[in-house]
Amino acid sequence: MKLNTIGIIGLGLIGGSLALDLKKKFPGMKIIGVEKDCKLNEKIIKLGLVDEIKMLEEAVSESDLVVLGTPPDVSVRLLDKILALVTDQVVTDVSSVKKPLIEVASKHNSCGRYVATHPMAGTEYSGPEAATNSLFQNKACIICDHQNSDADALELVNSLFSEVEMRIINMDATEHDRHAAYVSHISHISSFALALTVLEKEQSERNIFDLASGGFDSTVRLAKSAASMWQPVFELNRENIIDVIKNYEKQLGKFREAIANGDTETITSLIGSSNKIKKVL
Amino acid sequence: MKLNTIGIIGLGLIGGSLALDLKKKFPGMKIIGVEKDCKLNEKIIKLGLVDEIKMLEEAVSESDLVVLGTPPDVSVRLLDKILALVTDQVVTDVSSVKKPLIEVASKHNSCGRYVATHPMAGTEYSGPEAATNSLFQNKACIICDHQNSDADALELVNSLFSEVEMRIINMDATEHDRHAAYVSHISHISSFALALTVLEKEQSERNIFDLASGGFDSTVRLAKSAASMWQPVFELNRENIIDVIKNYEKQLGKFREAIANGDTETITSLIGSSNKIKKVL
Repeated sequence: MKLNTIGIIGLGLIGGSLALDLKKKFPGMKIIGVEKDCKLNEKIIKLGLVDEIKMLEEAVSESDLVVLGTPPDVSVRLLDKILALVTDQVVTDVSSVKKPLIEVASKHNSCGRYVATHPMAGTEYSGPEAATNSLFQNKACIICDHQNSDADALELVNSLFSEVEMRIINMDATEHDRHAAYVSHISHISSFALALTVLEKEQSERNIFDLASGGFDSTVRLAKSAASMWQPVFELNRENIIDVIKNYEKQLGKFREAIANGDTETITSLIGSSNKIKKVL
Repeated sequence: MKLNTIGIIGLGLIGGSLALDLKKKFPGMKIIGVEKDCKLNEKIIKLGLVDEIKMLEEAVSESDLVVLGTPPDVSVRLLDKILALVTDQVVTDVSSVKKPLIEVASKHNSCGRYVATHPMAGTEYSGPEAATNSLFQNKACIICDHQNSDADALELVNSLFSEVEMRIINMDATEHDRHAAYVSHISHISSFALALTVLEKEQSERNIFDLASGGFDSTVRLAKSAASMWQPVFELNRENIIDVIKNYEKQLGKFREAIANGDTETITSLIGSSNKIKKVL
């Protein structure tokens, strides 16, 4: 991979973890960080995530590749700004919603320099301190509408995510956003709603703590995720997400009715059908 | 703990794991297993879970303590049968719904020999091969309506679960069943429904596999759980579970409406409130 200088905008969980992996694999590579929240700069340097922190314009001008690691609404805004600045630099982003970014890119003459990417890795934590080694290993990295990108830009981004040991998968952006709603975004809504249900009913936190066995923990883990990341995802992928919530509500309704009616056969059949997820996971 | 012979009815995840821990801690203790499914007997012996397998009546007659490790509907039926057989043996069970068992016990003269217990430990797997060491360690064990049990019976069951390193918590059975619906049972319904939602939409299992990052995995993990265990839980704890599903549907509805209306403030506030679960987990 021919990459001397990379600019990472937003040094949170994804941007920071990418920086850690690259520093380890390519000690000679220069990593420039851009972070809007100045209070984080000292921490970012201390954690050894980047070589230096610069302003956005400088970072774009000095980098061969710019990675947007910001929340998706910020990435939409910054992509518009960055594509107006680039000459031959390559730009990519990590948002879990891709259509809005591709639409913004399409308005620029430099749109071929952009590669729409969704590295499907993460945890429920955020910020520079959430950055961790090998976060991407063996996970899928979706590249959307690759036909819009210049061949060299595509090759560079492919190499980048292959170097952090991701499996590259090409996908149509519309398809991606629909799948992401079903396989990733709804998991978060389901967890947030579950946490709210339990918190509102169980006034005593002691009860939750005492009674929460492994099951509740894992189902509700994602409810620790940051609003700054997920509120824009839900708004940018609105139609798909409304669709999946409605289908989820339908399935819950089937359980509620079968349980209310003491319909043993239907309850058993619903659980049996859901067990098919075993084959996949 | 004075316990020479223990009879474990049902050598699945919970019964089997209890047997493993006891064999390790008390090599001199005799463990008699009862398993309805004859095809499992060879496996149970091979896994070293018990010393011998007997018929229910023999096991009850020869044991100082009988533990019902069967699914809750079977436990309700067997408790009725066993309490008609016991003289001074102690009987306990591990169901996650307690009122129906306490009601059955109350009809017997020997009801003081019964201790209603819910060791809050588990995984999504079932059967003898799911049995694992130290499953109970540092988890909560709820003892319900302990005032109904004879002092020596209560002491024995307390000791048993303390020996496998559980924290003993006393609770009213009605309260327990309500809490269990909120903190454990709904997690399973939420996972089953999520698995169904995704499986119905994503015809290609390849897509789910490729796109399922850590988030989906953990949210849907419980959807691997057996219908034979959970269908009876849902029916035996019907009222509480209907109540919690309705509240869960309300919370999902709040998300759906806020997202449909592009109501950034409400989405952010809902996620922020759900984040309070961090303090507890």
